[in-house]
Amino acid sequence: MTYGMIATWRMAYSGVKNQYDALLGGAYAGDILEQSINEVENFANFVSVGLGGLPNKKGVVQLDAAFMDGDRLAIGAVAGMEQVVNPISVARQLSKERFNCFLVGKGADDYALSHGFEASDLLSEKAEERYKDRSEKVATGELSPYDGHDTIGTVVVDQNGSICAGTSSSGLFMKEPGRIGDSPLPGSGFYADSDIGAATATGLGEDLMKGILSYDIVCQMEKGLSPMEAAKQSFTTFEKKLERKYGKVGAMSVICMNRAGEWGIATNCEFTFVVATDEQEPTIYIADRTDDGELSIEVMSSEAVDDFLTKIETEAE
Amino acid sequence: MTYGMIATWRMAYSGVKNQYDALLGGAYAGDILEQSINEVENFANFVSVGLGGLPNKKGVVQLDAAFMDGDRLAIGAVAGMEQVVNPISVARQLSKERFNCFLVGKGADDYALSHGFEASDLLSEKAEERYKDRSEKVATGELSPYDGHDTIGTVVVDQNGSICAGTSSSGLFMKEPGRIGDSPLPGSGFYADSDIGAATATGLGEDLMKGILSYDIVCQMEKGLSPMEAAKQSFTTFEKKLERKYGKVGAMSVICMNRAGEWGIATNCEFTFVVATDEQEPTIYIADRTDDGELSIEVMSSEAVDDFLTKIETEAE
Repeated sequence: MTYGMIATWRMAYSGVKNQYDALLGGAYAGDILEQSINEVENFANFVSVGLGGLPNKKGVVQLDAAFMDGDRLAIGAVAGMEQVVNPISVARQLSKERFNCFLVGKGADDYALSHGFEASDLLSEKAEERYKDRSEKVATGELSPYDGHDTIGTVVVDQNGSICAGTSSSGLFMKEPGRIGDSPLPGSGFYADSDIGAATATGLGEDLMKGILSYDIVCQMEKGLSPMEAAKQSFTTFEKKLERKYGKVGAMSVICMNRAGEWGIATNCEFTFVVATDEQEPTIYIADRTDDGELSIEVMSSEAVDDFLTKIETEAE
Repeated sequence: MTYGMIATWRMAYSGVKNQYDALLGGAYAGDILEQSINEVENFANFVSVGLGGLPNKKGVVQLDAAFMDGDRLAIGAVAGMEQVVNPISVARQLSKERFNCFLVGKGADDYALSHGFEASDLLSEKAEERYKDRSEKVATGELSPYDGHDTIGTVVVDQNGSICAGTSSSGLFMKEPGRIGDSPLPGSGFYADSDIGAATATGLGEDLMKGILSYDIVCQMEKGLSPMEAAKQSFTTFEKKLERKYGKVGAMSVICMNRAGEWGIATNCEFTFVVATDEQEPTIYIADRTDDGELSIEVMSSEAVDDFLTKIETEAE
């Protein structure tokens, strides 16, 4: 392999698939990344990203996103945005700024609106229904308030050796207003260096940020570890330390790709992800931790992929 | 040396001095850190932290802070707070939360007010005058809008081996509303692990966050480098990379201390800092980069310290 892309969760599949020709055609990593994530943000049935995202405790959708251009180490990030469907695009725009590249709250929305982004109502009717339904279940103890926090995280290594990483998320379901997780945080949620590779994380942001996992994985790849070894090394070391020192470890998953287009992942829960390279068409994988603590990875069957694609037309994912 | 504390900028001096007995007396690192930073936050003549902090472009003071408990890797952080003088105390309170430990904007203020913190007007009369004066100078080109961004960053290693790191800052002068720098960002602005040591950074946050410097320094200390070697190694490697890849490098300084109470720093500009250990009373140092690129560090003379202490009674620093 010489180039490719990897993205968290099966919700990334259509976006990756629709960018596959661009990837093979030599498009820039940043464009491929942004457009593939936009597709997830725009699709209201994906309930943890962009339009129709999981609302916070007060029923307001607040979005976080980040973009890193590994050629220049340039970063743009936003957190707590309430008015724009595509925070990844705002983050990318911010990565071009020398100063004020990470904006939160109203400042992020104001920047976006003054830079040509359209204001939208992020709380879809369905999301509002879901919020009410889930709020009741939380009230009765049927559901934990913090179930559901799936970030779309994507790494692209393009034909010309440019590497970008990006994330987009509505964060924890029922989060406190203004809460941000690891997704917009450089080093924790994402890191990219075109000399080496890139990584992104998804899971309980409060735990991920304690370990600076994405940066650590890039450091391991720099030492010469394969992406799979790097992900395992960083993840396992941190997980053990967190267990020992904090006593609790939430769900966490990481993905990475090096400059040769080789990929790796690590997870402590059931975790789907999507890979596409010059040698492999877009593929959904299902990973999990086996009973003896090892990592299992399987290709999702074409039937299961079809079922998934049919299901999301009408149901929330 | 077996324990001690180090803090960025000479504004830290009185806070460190007033905590020195507590440090020698075996107090907890988190208490020493919080109280020493509170002192800087509360003093309106220190214009880049807490009360009287540098306002943003719209004349509003927005504060960022973070606290890390290296025993548990627990983190609390706030950004864009407008109503509370002591964001480090809010950050420390948040570090006790399992979920929602990093809050931005109104969410951070609301959390603080509902947890017993008092609402205050952060914009002192003097700061408002200074804002108007500097705004005019920016308009006429006499001053760069982004001059002034001194974060108080502190590391404490206590007698019992607990290590904490914390930061507090009003961020870039004339920043865009909602802009956050590296100060509240885990890994970039600070990192602490009681097994190893801790580090914090100050300078142009937009550049510091590209390198995840604080975490990297802790990783170098973990490998066995002395704090001075670790700071130099991380700083120089990142600075060279940033110069090559981004073409520009802003002012940056880092401080660190390991679990033996040994300290290190690195900087590319004139930089003052304060050290106190079991073997050394609170001391202000002045560091700079010499013409041949080496690091110079000198103890500030007692006359200069006295002049400084007299000056800040009436003048802004």
